[in-house]
Amino acid sequence: MIVIGELINASRKAIKAAIEAGDAEAIAKVAKDQAEAGADYIDVNAGIFVGKEPEYLKWLVETVQQATDKPCAIDSPDPKAIEAALAVHKGTPMINSISLEKERYEKLLPVIAGTDLKVIALCMSDAGMPQTVADRMTIADELVGGLLKNNVAVESIFVDPLVQPVSVNTTFGVEFINTIEKIVAAFPGIHTACGLSNISYGLPARKFMNRIFVTMAIAKGLDGAIINPLDSSMMATIIAAEALAGRDGFCMNYLKAFRAGMFD
Amino acid sequence: MIVIGELINASRKAIKAAIEAGDAEAIAKVAKDQAEAGADYIDVNAGIFVGKEPEYLKWLVETVQQATDKPCAIDSPDPKAIEAALAVHKGTPMINSISLEKERYEKLLPVIAGTDLKVIALCMSDAGMPQTVADRMTIADELVGGLLKNNVAVESIFVDPLVQPVSVNTTFGVEFINTIEKIVAAFPGIHTACGLSNISYGLPARKFMNRIFVTMAIAKGLDGAIINPLDSSMMATIIAAEALAGRDGFCMNYLKAFRAGMFD
Repeated sequence: MIVIGELINASRKAIKAAIEAGDAEAIAKVAKDQAEAGADYIDVNAGIFVGKEPEYLKWLVETVQQATDKPCAIDSPDPKAIEAALAVHKGTPMINSISLEKERYEKLLPVIAGTDLKVIALCMSDAGMPQTVADRMTIADELVGGLLKNNVAVESIFVDPLVQPVSVNTTFGVEFINTIEKIVAAFPGIHTACGLSNISYGLPARKFMNRIFVTMAIAKGLDGAIINPLDSSMMATIIAAEALAGRDGFCMNYLKAFRAGMFD
Repeated sequence: MIVIGELINASRKAIKAAIEAGDAEAIAKVAKDQAEAGADYIDVNAGIFVGKEPEYLKWLVETVQQATDKPCAIDSPDPKAIEAALAVHKGTPMINSISLEKERYEKLLPVIAGTDLKVIALCMSDAGMPQTVADRMTIADELVGGLLKNNVAVESIFVDPLVQPVSVNTTFGVEFINTIEKIVAAFPGIHTACGLSNISYGLPARKFMNRIFVTMAIAKGLDGAIINPLDSSMMATIIAAEALAGRDGFCMNYLKAFRAGMFD
């Protein structure tokens, strides 16, 4: 599982305060903690700061990369903010995310075309949120097709079929996981990724439900997740699901996690 | 989810003692507890009592049916024991199980042919344990085909693809869940069922892994499970997975389980 650590997001109070105060130490700690807990990418998001997003995003990238050797997931819909962050990023970051929304697509595609940047391709268009597998596949086909045509390797693409709340529509869980399965079959070598928490919106016991949902998505082929890697119940769930999905030779990670007390 | 409560099994010490002592009250309590916790069938197994299995199985069925209004899953490979149990069973029990092992198949098929008995069709043959999806589908095709030809309704059949330990072979989890998906697609209206605990054989944190595994199997279409319904963590997992699988209109069961404290 490719884990994208979600904690450095300015919509969280402590992160907002740290960014405003220029408290590099606080940001570095959250970056390091996530890397040690198993994050492969450290997401950085300064979206709440209208006008200052490029400057802050750049500072976040520099601060994270001084603290860890992990690449960032540059989390913004704004090409200017993304380019500011890219200018200082060492190694190969992930762009989180392109979509089929016209303006976002047209402005971001030139930034990504022909590069080895990783990119999350979110199944969203100007027609609104997709509801069914077919809706999602229509968007995914066009989005992935566009990226491939513009010399982005299939292995660099992480399709996010867009999680929607099962409380709103009983079929939204199934439509999502069935899309994962279809995407993996349609584009050999591609990755998938998603945030999870929307699935349980409006319901109680959300963390529990989110863990059940990621397990079901892994059964269908999900191999990337935007999560809090410090949530050890979530990480333990993913480790066990990956062992059962045949992605953990001799169950070595599972046994290691057990010895580390993650299943206690 | 069709839940088959597994606790009345003579291989368990307390059950063995209750059977030997003719302690109907003890058996009735285990039956009632399972029914109240959500069991749809009460499994009865007296397999350890060589020579006395028919007599004891018959007594178990009578005792369970005096205590609850649930049908039994008659758990034996022996047609004589099954017939003794059937003679006293009211309503429609489940036979657990027929397989493609020649002797078992030939002796059990006449008992089931043309009836409305529910039957677990275990993917096992005289060639031994199946390893791959293809192995399992070969057996399932022949087994289900034979039952259908002998006037057993597809809705009465619960295919069990046979869980094997992921510690023995990293692919055994995937081969199992992928078989579930294929069976559901191949025989519209069919059910699937399985015991879970073999998956985690040889590994630590077995109950945790079993819950992750049932969740993955539900994502692929599993709709029956032979479990301990008094294990409320397992039941909570199944309830959440079913809500996410689109089998719980308006998440009513999920909300009910939450109010009952099952997610605490």
